[in-house]
Amino acid sequence: MALAALRAARRAPWLSSTSSRALQRKLFSVSALRRNAAVTRDLMTGEFTSLPDIEQNRLQVVKSTNLRPPPPSSSLVFGQVFTDHMLMIPWSATNGWDIPKIQPYGPLSLEPCCTVFHYAQTVFEGMKAYRDGNGKVSLFRPDMNMKRMVNSAKRIALPTFDGDALLELIKELIRIDKHWIPQESGYSLYVRPTLIGTHKAIGVGPPNEALLFVICSPVGPYYPQGFKPVALYGTTEFSRAAPGGTGGFKLGVNYAPGVVPQKAAAEKGYAQNLWLHGPEHYLTEVGTMNMFVVFKKDNGALELVTPPLDGMILPGVTRDSVLSLARKHASGKNKLDGLTSDFIVSERPVTMSEVKAAAEANKLVELFGAGTAVVISPVDRIGYLDEDMLIPTGSDGMGPVSRVIYNELVGRQLGTIPSEWSVTVSES
Amino acid sequence: MALAALRAARRAPWLSSTSSRALQRKLFSVSALRRNAAVTRDLMTGEFTSLPDIEQNRLQVVKSTNLRPPPPSSSLVFGQVFTDHMLMIPWSATNGWDIPKIQPYGPLSLEPCCTVFHYAQTVFEGMKAYRDGNGKVSLFRPDMNMKRMVNSAKRIALPTFDGDALLELIKELIRIDKHWIPQESGYSLYVRPTLIGTHKAIGVGPPNEALLFVICSPVGPYYPQGFKPVALYGTTEFSRAAPGGTGGFKLGVNYAPGVVPQKAAAEKGYAQNLWLHGPEHYLTEVGTMNMFVVFKKDNGALELVTPPLDGMILPGVTRDSVLSLARKHASGKNKLDGLTSDFIVSERPVTMSEVKAAAEANKLVELFGAGTAVVISPVDRIGYLDEDMLIPTGSDGMGPVSRVIYNELVGRQLGTIPSEWSVTVSES
Repeated sequence: MALAALRAARRAPWLSSTSSRALQRKLFSVSALRRNAAVTRDLMTGEFTSLPDIEQNRLQVVKSTNLRPPPPSSSLVFGQVFTDHMLMIPWSATNGWDIPKIQPYGPLSLEPCCTVFHYAQTVFEGMKAYRDGNGKVSLFRPDMNMKRMVNSAKRIALPTFDGDALLELIKELIRIDKHWIPQESGYSLYVRPTLIGTHKAIGVGPPNEALLFVICSPVGPYYPQGFKPVALYGTTEFSRAAPGGTGGFKLGVNYAPGVVPQKAAAEKGYAQNLWLHGPEHYLTEVGTMNMFVVFKKDNGALELVTPPLDGMILPGVTRDSVLSLARKHASGKNKLDGLTSDFIVSERPVTMSEVKAAAEANKLVELFGAGTAVVISPVDRIGYLDEDMLIPTGSDGMGPVSRVIYNELVGRQLGTIPSEWSVTVSES
Repeated sequence: MALAALRAARRAPWLSSTSSRALQRKLFSVSALRRNAAVTRDLMTGEFTSLPDIEQNRLQVVKSTNLRPPPPSSSLVFGQVFTDHMLMIPWSATNGWDIPKIQPYGPLSLEPCCTVFHYAQTVFEGMKAYRDGNGKVSLFRPDMNMKRMVNSAKRIALPTFDGDALLELIKELIRIDKHWIPQESGYSLYVRPTLIGTHKAIGVGPPNEALLFVICSPVGPYYPQGFKPVALYGTTEFSRAAPGGTGGFKLGVNYAPGVVPQKAAAEKGYAQNLWLHGPEHYLTEVGTMNMFVVFKKDNGALELVTPPLDGMILPGVTRDSVLSLARKHASGKNKLDGLTSDFIVSERPVTMSEVKAAAEANKLVELFGAGTAVVISPVDRIGYLDEDMLIPTGSDGMGPVSRVIYNELVGRQLGTIPSEWSVTVSES
């Protein structure tokens, strides 16, 4: 009888675990997010009857009296220099979101018992502000970062908030530190919203205090000398995510555990890990990026494939943008110059066996990572089970699909190709 | 061909993935830990040729001028009150471990870019100091906490250290705040060593700065009114750990993701989650505790079972102590009064099917959690796949195995049963 149950369980692997996925969907659906919750007070007592959300109109600004000159762009190393100001919004379970403040960049003062130090209660986002030749400043699809941050907060019982209000405050922070955005092509201002649990007690539970802060760092292009394809190590020793875990959310907990595997891959001569899942070795992500693979089908069509959002895959903004551009091309709604019309887009699981068989049959066209920091990162080699698999790349380091999509994507980010994805940070 | 590889992979499930486990063992074996590394300086230049480890002899003590009276023991809630002092030891990649300081308990000042806030670079330990009727203060197997902390640090690329030196410094902290240890039976001083990454840059990598601190909190017994068995929810929606992940290490990243599942279980009327793994629903841990189950075999013998340390199970000090006492009893080396001699101890995987079949055949004797905070936590009910499974408990809330082991364990912790596990914090 135990054996029968075991067999039954084996017939229901994680991919078809519908009840689990239905519950996760219910718990974390975007429609269930608290948005624009109105603050109401009792007319007699003045007490809150619903707690205040983030209120952009109550922003207080304390300008720095010690403004620093931004460093020369050529000296920039990712994430090491920060602008003059930061945004701070404290939250408490009793009073909701407090008054937002833009104040001089400086240290936080936190008691050593605060839960972020012990239980990793932290959520973050990464987005970029671009400045074009005319000085116009824009963000790329920032609404997606706000939605994801609210969803991530929910996953680890941190407070949720009105993403539109936070975005307006971030725009104000960018306006104040606008002169920190490098002018040079490929450079940008990396914006880092972070939300931490600051409950002053070492019990494990939902925090009664939290702090949302936003800091900004001027950054250079990932590939200043043009694209350089990277080699990946298909790790079977370490995993990044698992069913029922946190891989589908942008949480700090997904990052610290990746450092040792990254060092192990580097010692073997590879740039990043290719994270595989399960005994089938499903491809999931690359380093801290989403991933895409392109196959040539028997009928000559190209198939662009990325793993589905099954709870283990981060819903990346670049991932979504690549898929969206590719699908509009495939449907004929918005053709991309230089990309074949014989083109299919799939969100489906891919195993290493499939990739390897395609490589051996000359049907593997390209493989690349996609993320905010790097945009597109082509791959030319995968070490897997003691063998190296070579992946084609063009003389510019890219492939026939990534090259076209990269140009469209970067054009839209920088505003040279007009699109509703580019959100202007208005002057004043 | 792809299908053949898929089948081959399916024949090699995670439990028999020897190459992966061998590598994990090599990377994290206790014997590989850096211990008592000597600090050496170049005789000519005075420069370090190996970086300083924690040096207990260089301790600086700055006493608080604002000593607070410890609160009445009856008012204590776990982890909310902290003693007058804390231990702080900063580390940097260039200078190694800095001078240790015991100083007044107070806030840390950390830049918002510090990696702990973004990437969850945090490791912690939990241990208890007991004071017996004669005022003698002792710790329970603190060497195991030190070894585990070094091992945990290694897993997320935080600096390792000489655990013996840290333990001596912790003893000094306890001596200084000794009057904070409650006298009452069942009360203790909870000691919380924590190590965080404080690299001032938002790149993901090994930190170039870190901070080790130790804070102490007087705590009461988990069950002030005697044992109260708890109900568990066998969660199939969420998982705590996975092969190749971090479940076998005491990292912050294992805790924040458990809060929402805990709330979900509580809403269904259960106290904690029973974390299940894989389609076979292997039992792994209970809430934030290790777990044990007792079966009655067909020949009448009792079998005490706990899941093996396969990388997903935390190597708990209480878990190890329960196993050790049980094994010494089974082998006849150290018989425990009141426990049958017909007794087997197993570290092996257990599935819910096995537990369910045993319950239906009246062969399920008891099931309990084990951890530092609670010591032993008996379970009387498990909700699993929409059914409730009842588990026997005695009139005192415990079972025939847990009762005997609990008494032996607590006796050794409090020093009423002499043992080498109890380490005296000497007067000075």
